[in-house]
Amino acid sequence: MSADPRLLANAIRALSMDAVQAANSGHPGMPMGMADVATILWTEYLKHDPSDPKWHDRDRFVLSAGHGSMLIYSLLHLTGYARPTIDDMRNFRQMGSPCAGHPENFLLEAVEATTGPLGQGFAMAVGMAIAERHLNALFGDDLVDHRTWVISGDGDLMEGVNHEAVGLAGHLQLGRLNVLWDNNKITIDGPTDLSTSEDIPERYRASGWHVGSCDGHDFGSIRRALDEAVADPRPSLVDCRTIIGWGAPNKMGTAATHGAALGPDEVKAAREHLVWDSEPFDLPEPIVAAWREAGARHRQSHENWRALLAASTHREEFVRRMEGRLAEGMAKGDYFDWLAANPQKVATRKASELALEAINAVLPDTIGGSADLTGSNNTKTKAQKPLTKEDYSGRYIYYGIREFGMAAAMNGMALHGGVIPYGGTFLIFSDYCRPAIRLSALQQVRVIYVMTHDSIGLGEDGPTHQPVEQVMSLRMIPNLAVYRPADAVETAECWALALERRDGPSLLALTRQNLPQLRTGRTDNLSARGAYRLRAASAVRRVVLIATGSEVELALRTAGALEGQGIGADVVSMPCWSLFDAQDEAYRADILPGDALRISIEAGTTMGWERYVGPRGLAVGLDRFGASAPAEELFQRFGFTAEAIVPRILAALKMQGDQ
Amino acid sequence: MSADPRLLANAIRALSMDAVQAANSGHPGMPMGMADVATILWTEYLKHDPSDPKWHDRDRFVLSAGHGSMLIYSLLHLTGYARPTIDDMRNFRQMGSPCAGHPENFLLEAVEATTGPLGQGFAMAVGMAIAERHLNALFGDDLVDHRTWVISGDGDLMEGVNHEAVGLAGHLQLGRLNVLWDNNKITIDGPTDLSTSEDIPERYRASGWHVGSCDGHDFGSIRRALDEAVADPRPSLVDCRTIIGWGAPNKMGTAATHGAALGPDEVKAAREHLVWDSEPFDLPEPIVAAWREAGARHRQSHENWRALLAASTHREEFVRRMEGRLAEGMAKGDYFDWLAANPQKVATRKASELALEAINAVLPDTIGGSADLTGSNNTKTKAQKPLTKEDYSGRYIYYGIREFGMAAAMNGMALHGGVIPYGGTFLIFSDYCRPAIRLSALQQVRVIYVMTHDSIGLGEDGPTHQPVEQVMSLRMIPNLAVYRPADAVETAECWALALERRDGPSLLALTRQNLPQLRTGRTDNLSARGAYRLRAASAVRRVVLIATGSEVELALRTAGALEGQGIGADVVSMPCWSLFDAQDEAYRADILPGDALRISIEAGTTMGWERYVGPRGLAVGLDRFGASAPAEELFQRFGFTAEAIVPRILAALKMQGDQ
Repeated sequence: MSADPRLLANAIRALSMDAVQAANSGHPGMPMGMADVATILWTEYLKHDPSDPKWHDRDRFVLSAGHGSMLIYSLLHLTGYARPTIDDMRNFRQMGSPCAGHPENFLLEAVEATTGPLGQGFAMAVGMAIAERHLNALFGDDLVDHRTWVISGDGDLMEGVNHEAVGLAGHLQLGRLNVLWDNNKITIDGPTDLSTSEDIPERYRASGWHVGSCDGHDFGSIRRALDEAVADPRPSLVDCRTIIGWGAPNKMGTAATHGAALGPDEVKAAREHLVWDSEPFDLPEPIVAAWREAGARHRQSHENWRALLAASTHREEFVRRMEGRLAEGMAKGDYFDWLAANPQKVATRKASELALEAINAVLPDTIGGSADLTGSNNTKTKAQKPLTKEDYSGRYIYYGIREFGMAAAMNGMALHGGVIPYGGTFLIFSDYCRPAIRLSALQQVRVIYVMTHDSIGLGEDGPTHQPVEQVMSLRMIPNLAVYRPADAVETAECWALALERRDGPSLLALTRQNLPQLRTGRTDNLSARGAYRLRAASAVRRVVLIATGSEVELALRTAGALEGQGIGADVVSMPCWSLFDAQDEAYRADILPGDALRISIEAGTTMGWERYVGPRGLAVGLDRFGASAPAEELFQRFGFTAEAIVPRILAALKMQGDQ
Repeated sequence: MSADPRLLANAIRALSMDAVQAANSGHPGMPMGMADVATILWTEYLKHDPSDPKWHDRDRFVLSAGHGSMLIYSLLHLTGYARPTIDDMRNFRQMGSPCAGHPENFLLEAVEATTGPLGQGFAMAVGMAIAERHLNALFGDDLVDHRTWVISGDGDLMEGVNHEAVGLAGHLQLGRLNVLWDNNKITIDGPTDLSTSEDIPERYRASGWHVGSCDGHDFGSIRRALDEAVADPRPSLVDCRTIIGWGAPNKMGTAATHGAALGPDEVKAAREHLVWDSEPFDLPEPIVAAWREAGARHRQSHENWRALLAASTHREEFVRRMEGRLAEGMAKGDYFDWLAANPQKVATRKASELALEAINAVLPDTIGGSADLTGSNNTKTKAQKPLTKEDYSGRYIYYGIREFGMAAAMNGMALHGGVIPYGGTFLIFSDYCRPAIRLSALQQVRVIYVMTHDSIGLGEDGPTHQPVEQVMSLRMIPNLAVYRPADAVETAECWALALERRDGPSLLALTRQNLPQLRTGRTDNLSARGAYRLRAASAVRRVVLIATGSEVELALRTAGALEGQGIGADVVSMPCWSLFDAQDEAYRADILPGDALRISIEAGTTMGWERYVGPRGLAVGLDRFGASAPAEELFQRFGFTAEAIVPRILAALKMQGDQ
């Protein structure tokens, strides 16, 4: 590189302040402060090829401090990616521009992760680094040999999930993970010492990290620190001492540059200060040329890699996995045949384990784990070895008591590609991972959440551990498929659907308590329609019972009692709302006919069930916190028995008849 | 104390293993492992008086590792609290027993906090310690001079929220906070080194904590460590090296004692090992006597404190605050008069600030704060000084980028009493604090969440920052009052309701964008009914528009357009679902009449609105993630305009007419 890196960096500064000014909204301080560090990283260290954003062996770069999005947009444009264009940046934060307020992986191919919710970019990078080492262990250095780079701000490091991510990365000794900390000592409220007194390097060292440092505006110092980070076998934090808004002469170093446009006067002053004569969004040709040259510097190594891949015995399998296609053996369905022949009366968490035994045997892509509830979540199959720092080829991760960190790491693994992560905890702790579950959905990644102990059926642990509102509130997250299967067959069906779903996450809500197998014949995947008629009325149909999970068995008992009184009752099992809502009108009307009294039974909040039962229907549920007692007593106490439900149905039928 | 502390501790061990055995469910390992430490703490250090569990100046004790609940039940019983009784413990984890699976503050008066969701007990204790120092600064050593003690397990320390709590406590130098870490090197999945390699003491030191250590089974060592913790001016972590399940000869030191009954054989072996001859739940009289004597040892100092209180000029105000009664000035309503005379066109986040200016001036109990979004959440009023380690009398906390830690600390403050905490972040980050919001609700504490930027009205920051499902999913948390006010008047009304609500938390969802003041006359608090008719139809009523927050203005415009076509339309503002659902049938039927087409308008998920609009109604909402663009364009794009809504209403009316 012959060009002066300061000039290259100033191109980032100019684009960033101009775009934020044009939008009159955004965060100029971070891109301007980190421009020097990012320039060295992207022109001298980062392995990538702008002509192929999806090169499987590229380094991954995550801008965890996503509010500084103009930094990555500038870098992508300057190094020669097809998008974003200058016009995209002119339309920063405007409708239709891929240059959204925060970087979105679904808008720009080269954005590895959607960031902005603080702490999560960093934690996803840990997952990417895990996936890299795992695939390296399987496919070797020729095919998989790259790093994960992160730029993090103070907010990323202050969030709780950072502790979980740091602990996990340190424990697994992810030496390919290098985090550049934008240490500018400024947050939105002001200087960091308003709210924190932590010695951050010491904390990282305490978790097994290497910590280096540099003057973030001295290029020699930056190179030395990056060299050290690359050389060290531990995950590295580089303390980059920077000045926020560097280049804006009157505002730099203050919170005023953090989250607002600099204003025309300060932009003008910055142009003078930086001796930057070009008009907004106009880049000097020699500077663009130097950037493009730097962007192209891995073209040859990419070619070499392609040749290695072409010659590799692993080629087909490696490409299949990186493209996210399932293994062929998956389609056979032997397990369903076996279940039909050998009905299982087991908890659905156990049914999930049985399904996983079948899945993991034919699908090497899965990496399981649990947040310290392995034996309770039934997430570990017999042949799974742990993934450890000594053996990254393992397929099971002991995540520790780090629910949020686990979920974020799984997002990172799925974003990296080549693996299908699944992980377990109690359903109640979906609240702990909720921000990451939302990002799974927004990022459209195949992550599978195995959430057990899904109701008051958890029993004695009591209300702190009994999910009441969780299933319903998860159903509201757009693009999240929430499954609550009723037996071993549905559990296997939901697993199949979750694996086949390549553009979004799935969550399985599973019981602690045993459930009978309700379906014994061999059928199509009925769960795929979201809801289906499990039992048709014998007498003239007056009632449709709609239930999920453990309450389907109760619905069957209730239907039996009603039929005993000559009242015909369908039972509909509804493992997945969103799939049912996607069915055509005719199917939905057939399953939930308007002329019958509709009753939902689910051991959780009733809010939302009006959608299916209507104003005259009945929603049997639980709109309060649970209690500590054995499960059967709780179901009794809260009215989840046929004896309690039948009179309510009779009363409703009577009222309906009266009207 | 003349009794051998080992004998006292063995009473805890016996009760714990017997109760878990009787329930055949629970966690014996922790109480047995920490029995020696807890005995020394409760008989020699903890300031409390079992005859008055609510003595305002008692030390607070939080069992953050709540799964070891038999530890605290044993301690309360042995030191002489009225509850739990031996029978309560016999019924451990059974229906109706106050000895629930995890300690619940609403079942036993002497349980300071509901714990079990890991990490949160510790983080609540930080809030208690803040409240103590704050009240000490206001009321002096005579009235407020106590410590906060915590027993934490490895899980508490691994959770992300621990990092936030540790950072906050270190920054504020809460020297009265002493955490006893049950360092038994075992988690549910097995040895801690399966999942973590952290040097925990170094991490705490890096955040400004004192770290001591002891052999958790050597009484001299325990006393020395506790003396050091008390003497040190910093918050203290005491590394108590313990053996999980100490006393169970074959299982101690293994995960087998963690979460399951020991089994009759091992209980028998433990009795022999401990030379403990008594039958289950039968305690030797001399041991009970020694415990009771220790429990009574602060009776005199409690008497002395009572005398100090009686003589104090602060008495009335101190007692008012500790009892949670509002100041008299609150009732006057001057601010409502002012609003009626001076209508404000402001964002509801700004309206919240205006209301807070009025509230904070007359109610000294409030302690505000924000997770690094002070200027955006509008949570700081002019006269509020920061609460800092130099000045605990301040009434504003810069929580840093620690949403979950903030929420948990607020729970602790409210549990301590004497203060009313409120804190802000963006509504989207309610997901980060959700586990603590749930615990606010379960614990029935007055915590007020100020959640701003409550819809796509947030604009350019895009989908990672735009709440879509949050308002609705928060409504599902039992006992949480969720408010979405429509203008400055409703915002003030909701603030009044939140402050008056002593037995539960409230959450205000507030806009970034300006809204006109819709009500200008002086009325009763109409928000208190949850929903009310803001505008009555002029033409014959055929339509009722139900809206919340920023969409109420849109509902008014839509109603105007309908009336222009001769279609009468009511507009109902519905700031709080749960309050509306609590109204009588007649009121509800009057507000939402069955003979009109009902339409909800809310810029969030439609799921749930079927409750009020019925199967033929219309739910105008947003069932997908948002996008990055200016707010007005987003509202336009997603159909939140009268022009888009009116045709949908006309079509629905036509269909209704056709039927």
